[in-house]
Amino acid sequence: MKIGKATIPESAICTSDDETIVVRGENLCRDLIGKLGFVDYFFLLITGRRPDAAASRVLDATLVAIAEHGLVPSVQASRMTLAAAPDALQGAVAAGILGCGSVILGASETAGRMFARIDKLANERALALDAAAEVVVRELRAAGQAVPGYGHPLHKARDPRVARLFEVAAEAGTAGRFRAIAESVEQVLPAITGRELRLNVSAAIPAVLLDVGFPLDALRGVPILARTAGLIGHLTEELAQPIGFALSYQATRELRYTGALPEGWTPKTET
Amino acid sequence: MKIGKATIPESAICTSDDETIVVRGENLCRDLIGKLGFVDYFFLLITGRRPDAAASRVLDATLVAIAEHGLVPSVQASRMTLAAAPDALQGAVAAGILGCGSVILGASETAGRMFARIDKLANERALALDAAAEVVVRELRAAGQAVPGYGHPLHKARDPRVARLFEVAAEAGTAGRFRAIAESVEQVLPAITGRELRLNVSAAIPAVLLDVGFPLDALRGVPILARTAGLIGHLTEELAQPIGFALSYQATRELRYTGALPEGWTPKTET
Amino acid sequence: MKIGKATIPESAICTSDDETIVVRGENLCRDLIGKLGFVDYFFLLITGRRPDAAASRVLDATLVAIAEHGLVPSVQASRMTLAAAPDALQGAVAAGILGCGSVILGASETAGRMFARIDKLANERALALDAAAEVVVRELRAAGQAVPGYGHPLHKARDPRVARLFEVAAEAGTAGRFRAIAESVEQVLPAITGRELRLNVSAAIPAVLLDVGFPLDALRGVPILARTAGLIGHLTEELAQPIGFALSYQATRELRYTGALPEGWTPKTET
Amino acid sequence: MKIGKATIPESAICTSDDETIVVRGENLCRDLIGKLGFVDYFFLLITGRRPDAAASRVLDATLVAIAEHGLVPSVQASRMTLAAAPDALQGAVAAGILGCGSVILGASETAGRMFARIDKLANERALALDAAAEVVVRELRAAGQAVPGYGHPLHKARDPRVARLFEVAAEAGTAGRFRAIAESVEQVLPAITGRELRLNVSAAIPAVLLDVGFPLDALRGVPILARTAGLIGHLTEELAQPIGFALSYQATRELRYTGALPEGWTPKTET
Repeated sequence: MKIGKATIPESAICTSDDETIVVRGENLCRDLIGKLGFVDYFFLLITGRRPDAAASRVLDATLVAIAEHGLVPSVQASRMTLAAAPDALQGAVAAGILGCGSVILGASETAGRMFARIDKLANERALALDAAAEVVVRELRAAGQAVPGYGHPLHKARDPRVARLFEVAAEAGTAGRFRAIAESVEQVLPAITGRELRLNVSAAIPAVLLDVGFPLDALRGVPILARTAGLIGHLTEELAQPIGFALSYQATRELRYTGALPEGWTPKTET
Repeated sequence: MKIGKATIPESAICTSDDETIVVRGENLCRDLIGKLGFVDYFFLLITGRRPDAAASRVLDATLVAIAEHGLVPSVQASRMTLAAAPDALQGAVAAGILGCGSVILGASETAGRMFARIDKLANERALALDAAAEVVVRELRAAGQAVPGYGHPLHKARDPRVARLFEVAAEAGTAGRFRAIAESVEQVLPAITGRELRLNVSAAIPAVLLDVGFPLDALRGVPILARTAGLIGHLTEELAQPIGFALSYQATRELRYTGALPEGWTPKTET
Repeated sequence: MKIGKATIPESAICTSDDETIVVRGENLCRDLIGKLGFVDYFFLLITGRRPDAAASRVLDATLVAIAEHGLVPSVQASRMTLAAAPDALQGAVAAGILGCGSVILGASETAGRMFARIDKLANERALALDAAAEVVVRELRAAGQAVPGYGHPLHKARDPRVARLFEVAAEAGTAGRFRAIAESVEQVLPAITGRELRLNVSAAIPAVLLDVGFPLDALRGVPILARTAGLIGHLTEELAQPIGFALSYQATRELRYTGALPEGWTPKTET
Repeated sequence: MKIGKATIPESAICTSDDETIVVRGENLCRDLIGKLGFVDYFFLLITGRRPDAAASRVLDATLVAIAEHGLVPSVQASRMTLAAAPDALQGAVAAGILGCGSVILGASETAGRMFARIDKLANERALALDAAAEVVVRELRAAGQAVPGYGHPLHKARDPRVARLFEVAAEAGTAGRFRAIAESVEQVLPAITGRELRLNVSAAIPAVLLDVGFPLDALRGVPILARTAGLIGHLTEELAQPIGFALSYQATRELRYTGALPEGWTPKTET
């Protein structure tokens, strides 16, 4: 069935014959394997060009920053899935990645889009960053939307990863406009929301990446790739020392059933 | 519901308080972000220790080798999924990863397990590698199982990535026992199967990784992490220049319907 | 880590002791298995009450209507996934379901939400349905959003499933307000968009389901459940007569590589 | 890239023109929607033929039996995924389905394959069912494999769904050979394993389905389809009353970190 107009698929990423594999215009075996690092290759795959030194360093730092933060919900989902289907590691990784949504890890993309709007607005209307940030945050609030990338359930002061990522970005000599935009949002938030919501890692990541030319549309890919590494670490541990079912047991120890019961029935040992 | 015996979950990967995140015994913000590369961090997450120089170089090379090979089936599945559900990048990545199964990318693990058996058999019975390889390959054949990691639909001569990975491993100074095991399988295959089946990248990857102490149970994680990078490249292209529906249109242009038809009905324009 | 305020999980769906399983207040083994049909049970699971005869008949008809329409993109993605990972049927089903997104099958939910807004607007402002439909469609267009559930790549006249579903709903004696709303959108579309876009199955499904009290939030669940049945049919065929790789081969026969080539290299046999 | 020999895809499930959709030789709109129930349609999609009355009744009963059993691990994984990615219901369903693996719900298929072997062995060697069951169970044990479908973490006596499914199958007038095979396994287990392991629902389902001609290769599809209905019930509740994060909080309240700590560091408030 034909859906849409295009019928001849095109791609600019990879071609090959039986001797040579070409990726983004380069000879994979001769020029990339063992010569270009995996993180730089990830940048090349996405953008079609090799990263400069600053982009390479910053991208690598963001991947390390977000790969692992313990038994967060998506890791629990992944370990429970492996416990139930131990033959299909890829299925457990997929289950974990499916939690990289708008609320948690995907916030990197949403925050990046907010920063890009502030940048554009400041440029178009010749506004100071704080003024542009205030406009955009007020618009989000008026539309009933959350401000992505601020506040953290555990790190009430600034998430420690934020300072470190900003430090790496500064050391790498990046321009810092998007870091400044991220901080301008942090500054206007208390007056608008009545709460001290500090920058978290999901805002720091797009701030430092947009400063090195990483594309907006690929931002969600950074936490996804990083968490895949973290998930594989957890799943390797799960294969050796399973806790998936123990987690699910603990999760429901205080579960309350709030529905109806059949007439005259009371549970002997509720579960 | 309690399944299994363990009820208190334990993990050795990560702990934190509101100021500090500890991963594998190291302070994430102070000692890892911007200091340890993402590939080395992946090794640390899985094994609990930092890789030595050889392990670092070889692991990086394998990730670059397997990340991208054009519009293979799992990439098509992923791009079709994004075309149908463009708001959920994580879903399209998950769909692509679900194709890292026993036949294609998961063969890295299966081949690695075969090599580990050959290694053990050669040690236990003081056999030459060729002799041990022959025993194990004959056992697989007798059980009706495929020999994983040999032969390639496109690269009839050796997959060019194999030579390059072996070269990188040799440059890195690794012992090479598992490379030798992989080649011994290649040597015994023609006599047993009647076919010249050359080492492909799914056998080369476990061969070079087992030589640097990468754990067997985590082998499937390498193509999964690598392909995640490749998928994000493709999905970023898909957002800019969609071909998911064009691929699905092409796929069925010659489709033959082989089922029954309602009495008296002939299609006007079969689709 | 505590995210959000609630810490004690509650659910009204199921409880049990070692002899009895209670679902939505009923004794599963005594009163449901073999007594209540699966489609009615699906309604009970979602809403907490058994469907009346009209709701039962209409829900069943929608599930049959949307379960199968040949090798659509999500079915292709699913069959390619099984070809690559044949041991994990659940992974191939998951890959297929991941294509139930906003563009294709998820349109049932989006269309349902549009109908609910038209209904509310007509009630609140005492408008005729056509007038309310016009307001809502113009708002969608002004926001740059597609009108979900109208037009079909194959069925240029009305999708034949629409008439049949409306017929079943009428036979079942449902009120028909949401069918009328769906048709009012069809009537206002040509003047607003300049195109004859006819109701398709993704608009007919929410129209008939909202008329029998099926909840808005569960609408996307109907195509998901239905397609799961269709996918299992396809995957059973795939196990017996594999075409996953043939589909992927066909899909790329006319693929054009539009990227750069290494200097001096021309492919021998481009793939 | 061409993988395997077949290049022209064929399917016997569905064809259509712009007016008519044909499924398994029948006119979808004229003969199926509103006339054939969804469960019977599922049977038709898989097998190419409509079920007889016994098959229809038994298949329906198995779907109701297995659709819902509270907050089992795969439901928890699904609800946690929705909490993190609430825009993508399909992703949360997929995460839940990915737990239908070899250990939990997929056991229906594994048990079915064991029963088919016992049936074949009894026929070929003219053995009594108990004798054939003993041979097969001893083989499984010798190969270090679990006996699928026996024992239950909660229902120490026979899972109450077993008796009810067997009752429905008997009422429907099915032959009962596979029920007898399932019970013969139960009888030989204590002598072989030293434990009273009673038939659970994952063995009862294939027993009653194989007796009505349901295909072995599609067995895993029954719990997958059924659980999809259960998951949609849970996800609808999750959208209204979220507990995904509360479950994940509870799951880790007693979590023990067993890894190393940075020198001199002690957590202020371990999480």
